[in-house]
Amino acid sequence: MKFVIQRDLLMESIQHVMKAISSRVTIPILTGIKIEATPEGIKLTGSDSDVSIESFIPKEEDGIMNVEEITPGSVVVQSKYFPDIIRKLPLKTLEITTDEKFQVTITSGGSEFHLNGQDAMEYPQLPVMHTDNSFELKNDLLKELIRQTVFAVSTVETRPILTGVNMRIDDQHMHFVATDSHRLASRKIPLENDQSQLSFNNVVIPGKSLAELNKIIDDNEDEITISVTENQILFQTKHLYFLSRLLDGNYPETSRLIPEQSKTTVLTKTKELREAIDRASLLAKENRNNVVKLETKANDRLEISSNTPEVGQVTEEVTTDSINGEDLKISFSAKYMIDALKIIQEDYVKIDFTGAMRPFIIKPNENDQILQLILPVRTY
Amino acid sequence: MKFVIQRDLLMESIQHVMKAISSRVTIPILTGIKIEATPEGIKLTGSDSDVSIESFIPKEEDGIMNVEEITPGSVVVQSKYFPDIIRKLPLKTLEITTDEKFQVTITSGGSEFHLNGQDAMEYPQLPVMHTDNSFELKNDLLKELIRQTVFAVSTVETRPILTGVNMRIDDQHMHFVATDSHRLASRKIPLENDQSQLSFNNVVIPGKSLAELNKIIDDNEDEITISVTENQILFQTKHLYFLSRLLDGNYPETSRLIPEQSKTTVLTKTKELREAIDRASLLAKENRNNVVKLETKANDRLEISSNTPEVGQVTEEVTTDSINGEDLKISFSAKYMIDALKIIQEDYVKIDFTGAMRPFIIKPNENDQILQLILPVRTY
Repeated sequence: MKFVIQRDLLMESIQHVMKAISSRVTIPILTGIKIEATPEGIKLTGSDSDVSIESFIPKEEDGIMNVEEITPGSVVVQSKYFPDIIRKLPLKTLEITTDEKFQVTITSGGSEFHLNGQDAMEYPQLPVMHTDNSFELKNDLLKELIRQTVFAVSTVETRPILTGVNMRIDDQHMHFVATDSHRLASRKIPLENDQSQLSFNNVVIPGKSLAELNKIIDDNEDEITISVTENQILFQTKHLYFLSRLLDGNYPETSRLIPEQSKTTVLTKTKELREAIDRASLLAKENRNNVVKLETKANDRLEISSNTPEVGQVTEEVTTDSINGEDLKISFSAKYMIDALKIIQEDYVKIDFTGAMRPFIIKPNENDQILQLILPVRTY
Repeated sequence: MKFVIQRDLLMESIQHVMKAISSRVTIPILTGIKIEATPEGIKLTGSDSDVSIESFIPKEEDGIMNVEEITPGSVVVQSKYFPDIIRKLPLKTLEITTDEKFQVTITSGGSEFHLNGQDAMEYPQLPVMHTDNSFELKNDLLKELIRQTVFAVSTVETRPILTGVNMRIDDQHMHFVATDSHRLASRKIPLENDQSQLSFNNVVIPGKSLAELNKIIDDNEDEITISVTENQILFQTKHLYFLSRLLDGNYPETSRLIPEQSKTTVLTKTKELREAIDRASLLAKENRNNVVKLETKANDRLEISSNTPEVGQVTEEVTTDSINGEDLKISFSAKYMIDALKIIQEDYVKIDFTGAMRPFIIKPNENDQILQLILPVRTY
């Protein structure tokens, strides 16, 4: 194998595939990066079995030569050293060659590295996907769907299915839903006409996979193709191939959790409320649940407070735009509420309460695509 | 105590005094920040016994009111919560009041915090300094002196005296010297006329104190006053008072370590050499000493290399401006060499070797104020 390549392009591809590489894998060769040179260009692969990422650098693109002097071949290099070496090379281009003993030579200017590589034949084959369940989304929309749900997945393995985000088609909408059983975040988007044949409801994508995917895809309007099979999902852009296993098991039916009526409705400024709750939780830092109390007051005011006897107490007063319905005293996790408010870009937020012991709903005002739910904490 | 203050000014002072506060102190009240209100302004104090920092916010400065509604008094607040609270308050001003039970009330807009404070009378008194050994330096010069030496102090406590930087007057110069016994960094500056009465040679300032001081003082040409006594040193600017204890014991005589002759002299580009050594050390990451080999070659070239059999090997070739004297093969810690080259701003560096087993000297070309020394590692 031999090729001469632009350092920045190689570096970008390395950073992409590194997102799938973990030092804690049972198959040792998966701690490496697979490099394949073909007459069309260079392909890098990283995988931890759960997630596999391929990044392709075409030989030529838009009339610009990215890779030159290609002699096809492949090798696996140690991911612990390779990225640092490439990043620190002195020139803008570098040459990589291998010999029959999988010795990798990297040269650039006065630098010459010889690395012990491994036979790429020993690297596991990625599965090939066959499915008709394919659709396209714009990158920025997919990033929104991820950002607005993934934070609510469970981080404990007691119910593994809850560590994923449920993607399902229902009622002419695609839904992304995540819950850790204490709170729920959901976002839906209307299906486009050419997506009407799509059908799935128990697709559960590991939250960790989505978080990594979100770091890799650019925030633009390019299309990403998503293909779903029984146990895998593939996200594919022009030069990137992101494959994740799906979680086994049935995702719980979450729609029944959502209260249909409301006893107290608060309309207020999103940022102001978030900052007040953040401050109210400051003295409760060491308290794992970070619980604050919220109480409706006269003249459309909310009082948010917390009390940590050994440290002190805090009271925040928020003047809302309106409070309708019954008076309310409720306690909840400040962290959950801040997480929920953070992903709302709209200036105003509407919160529907159904009493101190019932879950409450947080929505951007005049936007039905986002719905979040938080379970209160029993303190009163 | 009561006052109304600009949040940003208070925050800046808090950040300064926090540099002296540690959670690992034997006197519990030292985990707090002392706040004193006087008719002239607000003084904050933080201390861990070794270092004490006072920051003063004058009531009025350049015709601008910083503090208003002052009722004199004092209190100690918990440093774990106070900075976050102040930073997150909703308005640009805030009010602090205390009651007779040392309850501290902080209000700003709709926020109201009640914190349990402590009696400031229980806070240790800072020592008062009496000395004629005082002089002034410009902030940016002091920062240079610190930056160019403090990295070379010892981080192990086997010889505590080496964890400090030695400041001494000698030969009409002020010298800053640090060594961990494997390398040495020194910087000298000529004494100004009004400093000719100064006399000290065994002043050893803890490296940790200097590192914190460096973070606090601004990089400008304002003057800082430095006063030295038997066991303490005080750095004083208009509104800041930084007191550090000195280290006990005799600092070793370092001037004898410096070879007076040279057998091989290399003149080369600082940055190019540093980057080549950095790359040459990449595969030796796990090797604690991070040793690389340097060898002179024909045509004024240097070869820097390292070999880690289980990973691979690297060779860097550097074309220097000149190599004079004997041929040389020498091994040394890449980390020490990179540290030394990093603090040299000059484009060219001169290295004087006296054989493979003798310490070598690194200097900026045409600048005698900086001198660094590194002991080689025996590998050949």
